[in-house]
Amino acid sequence: MTESKAINVPELLKELEGHLTSLKYGQEPTELYQPIDYIMQLGGKRIRPLLALLAYSLYKDDYQSILNPASAIEVFHNFTLMHDDIMDEAPLRRGNPTVHEKWNANTAILSGDVMLVKAYDMLLEIDPALLSKVLRLFNKTAAEVCEGQQMDMNFETRDHVNEEEYISMIRLKTAVLLGFSLQMGATLAGAGEEDAQALYDFGVNVGIGFQLKDDLLDVYADKAKFGKQVGGDIIANKKTFLLIKAKESASDEQLVELNKWLEVSSTESNEQKVKAVTSIFTKNGINTLTENKMASYFEMGFYQLKKLKVNNPQALKTLKVLTEDLINRES
Amino acid sequence: MTESKAINVPELLKELEGHLTSLKYGQEPTELYQPIDYIMQLGGKRIRPLLALLAYSLYKDDYQSILNPASAIEVFHNFTLMHDDIMDEAPLRRGNPTVHEKWNANTAILSGDVMLVKAYDMLLEIDPALLSKVLRLFNKTAAEVCEGQQMDMNFETRDHVNEEEYISMIRLKTAVLLGFSLQMGATLAGAGEEDAQALYDFGVNVGIGFQLKDDLLDVYADKAKFGKQVGGDIIANKKTFLLIKAKESASDEQLVELNKWLEVSSTESNEQKVKAVTSIFTKNGINTLTENKMASYFEMGFYQLKKLKVNNPQALKTLKVLTEDLINRES
Repeated sequence: MTESKAINVPELLKELEGHLTSLKYGQEPTELYQPIDYIMQLGGKRIRPLLALLAYSLYKDDYQSILNPASAIEVFHNFTLMHDDIMDEAPLRRGNPTVHEKWNANTAILSGDVMLVKAYDMLLEIDPALLSKVLRLFNKTAAEVCEGQQMDMNFETRDHVNEEEYISMIRLKTAVLLGFSLQMGATLAGAGEEDAQALYDFGVNVGIGFQLKDDLLDVYADKAKFGKQVGGDIIANKKTFLLIKAKESASDEQLVELNKWLEVSSTESNEQKVKAVTSIFTKNGINTLTENKMASYFEMGFYQLKKLKVNNPQALKTLKVLTEDLINRES
Repeated sequence: MTESKAINVPELLKELEGHLTSLKYGQEPTELYQPIDYIMQLGGKRIRPLLALLAYSLYKDDYQSILNPASAIEVFHNFTLMHDDIMDEAPLRRGNPTVHEKWNANTAILSGDVMLVKAYDMLLEIDPALLSKVLRLFNKTAAEVCEGQQMDMNFETRDHVNEEEYISMIRLKTAVLLGFSLQMGATLAGAGEEDAQALYDFGVNVGIGFQLKDDLLDVYADKAKFGKQVGGDIIANKKTFLLIKAKESASDEQLVELNKWLEVSSTESNEQKVKAVTSIFTKNGINTLTENKMASYFEMGFYQLKKLKVNNPQALKTLKVLTEDLINRES
């Protein structure tokens, strides 16, 4: 074995951003293709392609050879954001107008459709011997992401959602795509089936942990560091892990209070609502409960890494550090 | 060469319908998958998969081996219908409520998305040696179909559209998918590059002809046979080939009258509007002009067939008869 190249996240990210910026999706009609350039340059952590490049680097050095399929996952992810934003009637994405606001819903539907096609096209750069296998995994994942979004929408109109259903929803809506990113990277580098599966399981488990972290930050983040409104989920009555567990553990009196706040729609009392609901969460130890749940998913995730037979231990260290940084993030 | 099997359209169609009915897209959440079953069983001529099966049969007998990829094109086509119906705010599809009417727009967006993923999944049954090639052609076609739909939407808000732009739009929106269906069938049967290209060109040319036929029937169909409202395009001010050519050839006086009718939005005068606009079309020979244009596209299409080196001439005869039946249809 030759000595492996040192991998660092800022450098990977720089190359990835350069690649993403260089991508050409199409020209005419401009109404179809401009929204793709627009949403792709809104930024984001680019966590999915980063995970693919890092998983590849565990086994092989030339991660540049998979920049296109890795970027395909980012294009797919942004396609789901473009369509989800229509369904959720979201006015802003990363502080900027959403595509359906800046253009209109029809443009967001059709640009999103063509983005999905372009994501598949970028996956065609995969070694033909692995293409059918990777596409099968991708299709399974893509369908699951849609299933998760449908479950999320269904939950909005339901009175009761339990913990198991919630975890199942976030697993499909967000975690499996992180798992697939790692699995694809490893598979393209020729990793064994067991390693690819362990990395998938790592991704799914930490992915669930990341979403629980999101739920937690939305209530308990430091206002100065968070970058968006603290308590947004409480105001929107979102059935997060915290609300689900609070309802389960609430005394009769607390349940009456919680339900009262869930019926409040006046924006004037938003501040009071966030304060009151947060206070019930804290009184019942929901923050600690969520942190423990989160920690157990991260633990299950990291446990998978012990099974790996990697060629580049330094890249594995980098993958761990990146994950820990995301675990410890404050916004 | 062994003697080729006789191919007949009713039998092909029966097998195809049986196959389409047997397809399972997914179970849960039901809101995501029921609309797929619903739109797929609304029927239609199944012309795209039929063309794929016929093109395959020109070279090889075992068309059953491509029922899945052929059906993938029908799934893709119905995905575009599901999303187009949202964009066009269409209440009915084949006489039944559209998906966004029966459920809602969000369900139609998300079910459509998952249909596109399922179409790709069904294409994975293709011989791995041909997979990447066929997917590349499919991706090109799928993007073009979206481009055509965007152009069609753009035309709605424009004052003027010329013949070239219109032909370019219908080529992308409807004709290239017919071309791809034939090209895929031939490619999967191992036909040479030239034959596959000639069949693609045949499909694109007759596809443009079919759309001109649609435009013509919408105005000149026999009410008793047509099955939908004659003059629907005139009422909707649709910039069809007929209206574009009528505007080009109109006298000053006729132009004033045409423009007057284009500004009428009262449904009470619909009958009068259809009568008046049709009369200008007929006076200026627009029906004959459209028929001639149509005939020239069919001729260009059929000319391509002369180049083919097929193994089963009877299947070629069947393909020609099917196409002629579509040319001569009255509804």
